[in-house]
Amino acid sequence: MWEEIFERLEQTSPTIHCITNFVTVNDCANIILACGGRPTMAHHPGEAAQIAAKSRALVLNMGTLHDTDSMFLAGRASNELGHPVVLDPVGVGGSDLRQQTFRSLAETVRFSVIRGNVSEIKFIATGAGTAVGVDAAEEDRITEGNVSELAKMARDLAGRLACVIAISGPIDIVADRDRVFLVRNGHPIMAKVTGSGCMSTALIGAFLGACPEKPFEAAAAAAAAMGVCGELAFAKTKEQQGGTMTFRMHLIDQVSLLTAERLNRLARAEAWKPDMN
Amino acid sequence: MWEEIFERLEQTSPTIHCITNFVTVNDCANIILACGGRPTMAHHPGEAAQIAAKSRALVLNMGTLHDTDSMFLAGRASNELGHPVVLDPVGVGGSDLRQQTFRSLAETVRFSVIRGNVSEIKFIATGAGTAVGVDAAEEDRITEGNVSELAKMARDLAGRLACVIAISGPIDIVADRDRVFLVRNGHPIMAKVTGSGCMSTALIGAFLGACPEKPFEAAAAAAAAMGVCGELAFAKTKEQQGGTMTFRMHLIDQVSLLTAERLNRLARAEAWKPDMN
Amino acid sequence: MWEEIFERLEQTSPTIHCITNFVTVNDCANIILACGGRPTMAHHPGEAAQIAAKSRALVLNMGTLHDTDSMFLAGRASNELGHPVVLDPVGVGGSDLRQQTFRSLAETVRFSVIRGNVSEIKFIATGAGTAVGVDAAEEDRITEGNVSELAKMARDLAGRLACVIAISGPIDIVADRDRVFLVRNGHPIMAKVTGSGCMSTALIGAFLGACPEKPFEAAAAAAAAMGVCGELAFAKTKEQQGGTMTFRMHLIDQVSLLTAERLNRLARAEAWKPDMN
Repeated sequence: MWEEIFERLEQTSPTIHCITNFVTVNDCANIILACGGRPTMAHHPGEAAQIAAKSRALVLNMGTLHDTDSMFLAGRASNELGHPVVLDPVGVGGSDLRQQTFRSLAETVRFSVIRGNVSEIKFIATGAGTAVGVDAAEEDRITEGNVSELAKMARDLAGRLACVIAISGPIDIVADRDRVFLVRNGHPIMAKVTGSGCMSTALIGAFLGACPEKPFEAAAAAAAAMGVCGELAFAKTKEQQGGTMTFRMHLIDQVSLLTAERLNRLARAEAWKPDMN
Repeated sequence: MWEEIFERLEQTSPTIHCITNFVTVNDCANIILACGGRPTMAHHPGEAAQIAAKSRALVLNMGTLHDTDSMFLAGRASNELGHPVVLDPVGVGGSDLRQQTFRSLAETVRFSVIRGNVSEIKFIATGAGTAVGVDAAEEDRITEGNVSELAKMARDLAGRLACVIAISGPIDIVADRDRVFLVRNGHPIMAKVTGSGCMSTALIGAFLGACPEKPFEAAAAAAAAMGVCGELAFAKTKEQQGGTMTFRMHLIDQVSLLTAERLNRLARAEAWKPDMN
Repeated sequence: MWEEIFERLEQTSPTIHCITNFVTVNDCANIILACGGRPTMAHHPGEAAQIAAKSRALVLNMGTLHDTDSMFLAGRASNELGHPVVLDPVGVGGSDLRQQTFRSLAETVRFSVIRGNVSEIKFIATGAGTAVGVDAAEEDRITEGNVSELAKMARDLAGRLACVIAISGPIDIVADRDRVFLVRNGHPIMAKVTGSGCMSTALIGAFLGACPEKPFEAAAAAAAAMGVCGELAFAKTKEQQGGTMTFRMHLIDQVSLLTAERLNRLARAEAWKPDMN
């Protein structure tokens, strides 16, 4: 299903420009390299637009809110050239500054994909939320019981913002205005290492750099790839009686070893149909 | 002895706000996750106070002296709400700027715990020191021969600053105005990876977030946990003929696998008695 | 051949001051520790000169262009005291800002060594280039066919800038005004982890801190050490069926386990003679 993304990544090695947080910036660069892209983490406002113009996709991550000027400059440059832009609205409901930054970015920059956890996306959809910090609130947890409601929310928000919405969680939800895709891969240990979300967003960026005209497919493939690699990495970790850092190593390892064939075989992904529930 | 900390960490998953250096920020976030806390590394002065108010404990680390404004804002907000604050005065004797920053922070913010290596704590106690950079000077090395003298220094300083003092080294010293605790765990390889000290401080922060009313116990438990995990990690590293990065991985791994039972069994910790020596 | 560097590193544990990018700063600190140095990543302009003065060598890395004021301050302080300075002109051809920053640094600071990939060094030599982002352009790849031409370019540039020039690639080239040294170690997987180049530069800094009067030998030894450790790390990675992050761990591991004897035995290094080709 996702052969094209893998083939184009290999053929084009797209340069992916990330303006991100300094907590997980190394992990994001490494996961982009692992899947066949070339990361460039140029953050200075004096070069942000120029670097964005030379790159194939832009990833904006609100984790530490450094160099937000650069986010606007690079975002506009990317929009002008038709390069895809992915946003990770980290902890958007957690402070007034994050809300304001998100609103300003959304007014200025056209996104191809917004990826967040369920608390972040709910906050964007409703303007309210209960999450503290950067993790999803427990009461927001995606389950089989609420997935239909959340799928509708994602689809509506995708229509309203005219971009793909990707929600990460026990069930991943990827939506555009017409379609919703659910991915049932992954492992709870992914929440025990910092950067799982940031890396998912970076992976979407790399996939979009390879296939800029297919944001829905890129976001769905990235969700499936992270989930499948999370499962494979957990199996290795368990075998070695390792902990969270062994898992983190294997997670990026598995992305570097992933093939389209393996992804297709192991992904538990399906289109969501409103009347299914 | 430390069951309560582990139980409360599991029950409450406290959000720990860290304003830290960008060298080891990823390690600090990962060790907080490993022990059951939730890290938030919000650094921007425009949100520092708000994030601190929503968190359960604050960790300030002077490693790269970025966003020191945020340290003051978050520190004051935490003090007002009675949230515990831990300080890591990295390399405090190494530059005038570090000394000034420490003095200003100490005048403005009330700390629950200050943790450093022996050169850093000596500098705070005496205003003099010989350390270059961020490592303890060789002549400051804690040994069985000088531990009593250093224990008294730590206890006196704890009384003077009205906070717990934790010194990391071959023998860890944890002191408040009345009590001193010694921990004889750990391994010299811990000094061969960057971030051992920063991670110790972050772990104190997480333990304090779980048990804010017990800073002495939290600091002692964190010293023991780092030491025990360092020993377990070194054993694994040796078995695999690995080097310093294999060790770093196993160190955080072991924190993620640590139980109160294992810590109690392996900790070589005891109260120091002035007349023991 | 390089026993002296290893002996002096062990005897002196030189403090190495790095002003670098925040993407790979942790890797750089860890590789300096791995080889026996003591990293200090002090970035604030308010202390840059003072920290540089207390250190034995300075590493400047243009990766994210943060704290460039500190680079000038620390560079001048190092020059005044005769401490060696290494520059990594990351992505110098990628933006106007990077070109300007390089030019200003080169006018202000005297370097002992400049290390880059072939696209970066070509850009410095010719003022033109095709690289996007921070990786070498494919058409710039060092091969047996063009190595003589590049060796001459490096030697000429070394003469012109009065410093050692080190080019990393499938064949590493190290040149001063009179001599060129080629190293045929390493593995292509090194380009699949972020920080291989930055770590090479940091290693040169540590070797220079141990042997400040021998920049050519330090740069050649660092190139050989990275290449040999890359090969050893790849062998371990393959044995474990690991990916890029397993490799990254083993790479720094091998530096921490490297001895002069092993380096001498495994290095495929030789003086280049113009008439060889």
